[in-house]
Amino acid sequence: MMIDFSLYVITNRDLSRNKTIIEVVEEVIQGGATIIQIREKNLPTRIFFENAQTIGKITKKAGIPLIINDRLDIALAVDANGVHLGDEDLPLKYARKVAPHLIIGYSAGSICEARKAEEDGADYLGVGSVFSTKTKIDAGEAIGAKKLEEIKRAVSIPVVAIGGITLVNLPEVIQSGVDGVAVVSSIIGAESPFQATKKFRFTIDYLRKGKIC
Amino acid sequence: MMIDFSLYVITNRDLSRNKTIIEVVEEVIQGGATIIQIREKNLPTRIFFENAQTIGKITKKAGIPLIINDRLDIALAVDANGVHLGDEDLPLKYARKVAPHLIIGYSAGSICEARKAEEDGADYLGVGSVFSTKTKIDAGEAIGAKKLEEIKRAVSIPVVAIGGITLVNLPEVIQSGVDGVAVVSSIIGAESPFQATKKFRFTIDYLRKGKIC
Ligand code: NI
Repeated sequence: MMIDFSLYVITNRDLSRNKTIIEVVEEVIQGGATIIQIREKNLPTRIFFENAQTIGKITKKAGIPLIINDRLDIALAVDANGVHLGDEDLPLKYARKVAPHLIIGYSAGSICEARKAEEDGADYLGVGSVFSTKTKIDAGEAIGAKKLEEIKRAVSIPVVAIGGITLVNLPEVIQSGVDGVAVVSSIIGAESPFQATKKFRFTIDYLRKGKIC
Repeated sequence: MMIDFSLYVITNRDLSRNKTIIEVVEEVIQGGATIIQIREKNLPTRIFFENAQTIGKITKKAGIPLIINDRLDIALAVDANGVHLGDEDLPLKYARKVAPHLIIGYSAGSICEARKAEEDGADYLGVGSVFSTKTKIDAGEAIGAKKLEEIKRAVSIPVVAIGGITLVNLPEVIQSGVDGVAVVSSIIGAESPFQATKKFRFTIDYLRKGKIC
């Protein structure tokens, strides 16, 4: 499966307004998300599994890859496309050993961390936080768009920018040359996740065509 | 590896008196535990992984099997011997599919649940709670020694009795014909887990020789 990282939407039940994660996922797929990550902390394993299984059916039908945050066991059990890890999760090398063929993403906030993750077998990187954010994304201090560009240049695997990305700062993020942008609160916490996704997707596509320069 | 379920000790950091889970594991192995389960809820994955990895080295050296509660990913990453699941964890069938060769234990509290788990591919059962207990063990109401015996007879896989087992009620548990007893608080919460394990082990061995009848 070729992965389109352009608009990487991350779920978080705490940010959803009276909507289940499943309803939100359906909306963001309709709106043009190219990849979905389920990031739900402190759910009992069975509940996380059941949600992931339901979402997996939706993403499969839509032809959209599904990534599970942290829980390699759930990723494998629901046959998700990948797992996203950070420094509080399983070490990359061990996850790779357990799951040789799974897509494994890793969070990085510096050139050093990015290169280490690439060496350890990451398939892509989540780099940030680009801007400051209240959403906990295992991403530390805000690094800014310039640093993001440096990290993107320092590795050869795809880079997804994450952290505080909005329609306003999207141009400088896209111009850094990253392969995609990860969005949590600006989409999941929006009144209409569908409309928010549509706007992000439209703006990304527009910026990529270079029409803004 | 042949598994001796006789004295199945389950760790729980909340019950340990000023000792790390690693120290407790070393003590209970010295005292005669025949199998260890790490059951730690709400730890970040990385911390759980690191503890499990350290304990895995200790159990391997001692020739004692290591079972991880709930977290199949950690069991696989640290190359533990098995995983123990219950109704809040991954469904047995899915775990079996992910890990065809791992020992998988499952919690059951009735003949029906026990037979279902056996059908779904469990390698052994944790049956209980036999007696009432304050330790949460995914085991529901106390079933008593008579029901335990009925469940043991209803399946052909090994049965480990769990829940509120003490030196006082150990005779009726052993006489039910189970393959082993799982102990949490009576050992982990003891002033000396080493001494407590030694007493349990001695009593189990003694009762099994039939000398009490
Ligand atoms: Ni759990």
